[in-house]
Amino acid sequence: MNSIDQLPMAPELSVSQWFNTDAPITLAELRGKVVVIEAFQMLCPGCVSHGLPQAQQIHATFPKEDVAMLGLHTVFEHHDAMTPVSLKAFIHEYGLSFPIGVDEAGGNAIPKTMQTYALRGTPSLIIIDRLGRLRASHFGPASDMKVAYQIAALVHSGAASKEVQNPVASATPC
Amino acid sequence: MNSIDQLPMAPELSVSQWFNTDAPITLAELRGKVVVIEAFQMLCPGCVSHGLPQAQQIHATFPKEDVAMLGLHTVFEHHDAMTPVSLKAFIHEYGLSFPIGVDEAGGNAIPKTMQTYALRGTPSLIIIDRLGRLRASHFGPASDMKVAYQIAALVHSGAASKEVQNPVASATPC
Amino acid sequence: MNSIDQLPMAPELSVSQWFNTDAPITLAELRGKVVVIEAFQMLCPGCVSHGLPQAQQIHATFPKEDVAMLGLHTVFEHHDAMTPVSLKAFIHEYGLSFPIGVDEAGGNAIPKTMQTYALRGTPSLIIIDRLGRLRASHFGPASDMKVAYQIAALVHSGAASKEVQNPVASATPC
Amino acid sequence: MNSIDQLPMAPELSVSQWFNTDAPITLAELRGKVVVIEAFQMLCPGCVSHGLPQAQQIHATFPKEDVAMLGLHTVFEHHDAMTPVSLKAFIHEYGLSFPIGVDEAGGNAIPKTMQTYALRGTPSLIIIDRLGRLRASHFGPASDMKVAYQIAALVHSGAASKEVQNPVASATPC
Repeated sequence: MNSIDQLPMAPELSVSQWFNTDAPITLAELRGKVVVIEAFQMLCPGCVSHGLPQAQQIHATFPKEDVAMLGLHTVFEHHDAMTPVSLKAFIHEYGLSFPIGVDEAGGNAIPKTMQTYALRGTPSLIIIDRLGRLRASHFGPASDMKVAYQIAALVHSGAASKEVQNPVASATPC
Repeated sequence: MNSIDQLPMAPELSVSQWFNTDAPITLAELRGKVVVIEAFQMLCPGCVSHGLPQAQQIHATFPKEDVAMLGLHTVFEHHDAMTPVSLKAFIHEYGLSFPIGVDEAGGNAIPKTMQTYALRGTPSLIIIDRLGRLRASHFGPASDMKVAYQIAALVHSGAASKEVQNPVASATPC
Repeated sequence: MNSIDQLPMAPELSVSQWFNTDAPITLAELRGKVVVIEAFQMLCPGCVSHGLPQAQQIHATFPKEDVAMLGLHTVFEHHDAMTPVSLKAFIHEYGLSFPIGVDEAGGNAIPKTMQTYALRGTPSLIIIDRLGRLRASHFGPASDMKVAYQIAALVHSGAASKEVQNPVASATPC
Repeated sequence: MNSIDQLPMAPELSVSQWFNTDAPITLAELRGKVVVIEAFQMLCPGCVSHGLPQAQQIHATFPKEDVAMLGLHTVFEHHDAMTPVSLKAFIHEYGLSFPIGVDEAGGNAIPKTMQTYALRGTPSLIIIDRLGRLRASHFGPASDMKVAYQIAALVHSGAASKEVQNPVASATPC
């Protein structure tokens, strides 16, 4: 059984540095909005060709008062190659305009937020509802149509659509 | 001034022949669902490359109890080349699975429903809310992200989002 | 063993009607040029998305004195749906500017030239050298890069490159 | 007037570090082959989406004994972000298999080879004939079809095709 009341809260982010924002951002202060997080690596081809353009489109399509689009640079390989210095140039060259945080280094290769959310790789798209509950975690490409439907369902209804109730069930890449 | 109460009702369809359905379909009987109509011509390149794949994806993404996806073959040029016989083969070859009606011939080159809706060409995407009111009419390509957001807004809320309140304002292709 | 001298001559086309040309075209009169033939059906999705745009690009890229690009409408299914009347509108809507012939109806569903060339389906790309010898017959998508290389090899050399010597070996779709 | 004999020789490369090769590479030792050089920056979106996939396809399509495909990392902006350490990871993640050299730093922001060839930006595709003469320098996207035709013309003929005789004339992006 899995009721909405039992949905897990999305853990707070661990971010060592932010881009495209004047002040650090916490999930706590975004309560009341749907939060969408694109976990990516700047040298991950699928992130560049699919994940980040989708994130940019989410940022452009949904009203800012309803949806907060965030990027999270979850470097788990080639750490020397994807430093914040390189990330800054990457953000500029690709014209990314939403806030992007650098996932804080952990005790091993996997950074802290990536560990906490048990992400399987990049790109991963995380969707959090207005009450701060984790509603979806897509690994790999998800269609714009499906992702927009899931986000809009959380924006426009207290009760979520059936498809987005269970974050585990919706975690399969499509 | 333009309030939701003043929104025009979507006129009934004039269809001479249906494909992919056992019985003729009316907008009246779909009241309670959001209805999305893809007006197309089988020899219109933009319909083939963009409009119809988007319609097929809408059909696959949204639950059937919430959204009815319909096609409307609005032939306004090359009438001899786009007969129902050709359309039938086209539907088969492109694997279109939603119901598709042939817009009834009018007194001139423009078929009846196309005239009634004052469509400017193909592809056009028409969105009708649960109460049967015309909410959007996109001429030309509209992004999957934006279209899914508009449909989902109408599925999940009594009150529509600001963006989809005025069908005229949202009629601009993007 | 397979020497260039043993390559089969490309059989003459059987065409019942031509578009985009003032007079009927024969392979015999094109001797001295490389001839490329796109065998297609107007309701074949792979022809519309890939084969015909590639043919149009070949037509635009290579000098007319070196390469003759031809289309061949090889209808082997849905005969009533793909008549010359429909084809004419299709050619207009898709802006195809190279000469296109209608493959002559045979005793069964397969038209005559398609039978003679033993084509396996559509789209098929046939390449004939300056001496009228059949050099390649690609079924399914072939990359622009590879096709351009094969054509250019035949344009620029008496002796063909190794890759295009054997039409059977190069018949595999890639 | 512009005869083939007056074509400029391609200047030698200035490379500070090589990847995907056991020994440094010079144009001099490649005399006898057509040499194609993709000048790129790892954080240049057009290089990632278009230029480098095209280079990889050239490398895969043409026989190694006829065509040498090289990459040249011509960093003229964000120097701290595109170091050889980052480039190494980039090459690995994007699966680039042809030899890639790092253009040697010059006295200003523009590296040495980029200056010598007067490249206008990235991506640029340079084509050198079997005799070491500069035959084309494309800035921006060039179609696979056109590029393959130009390379094949140089591979298969002593006398070049008209289109590739004048490197200045063919330098316009298409």
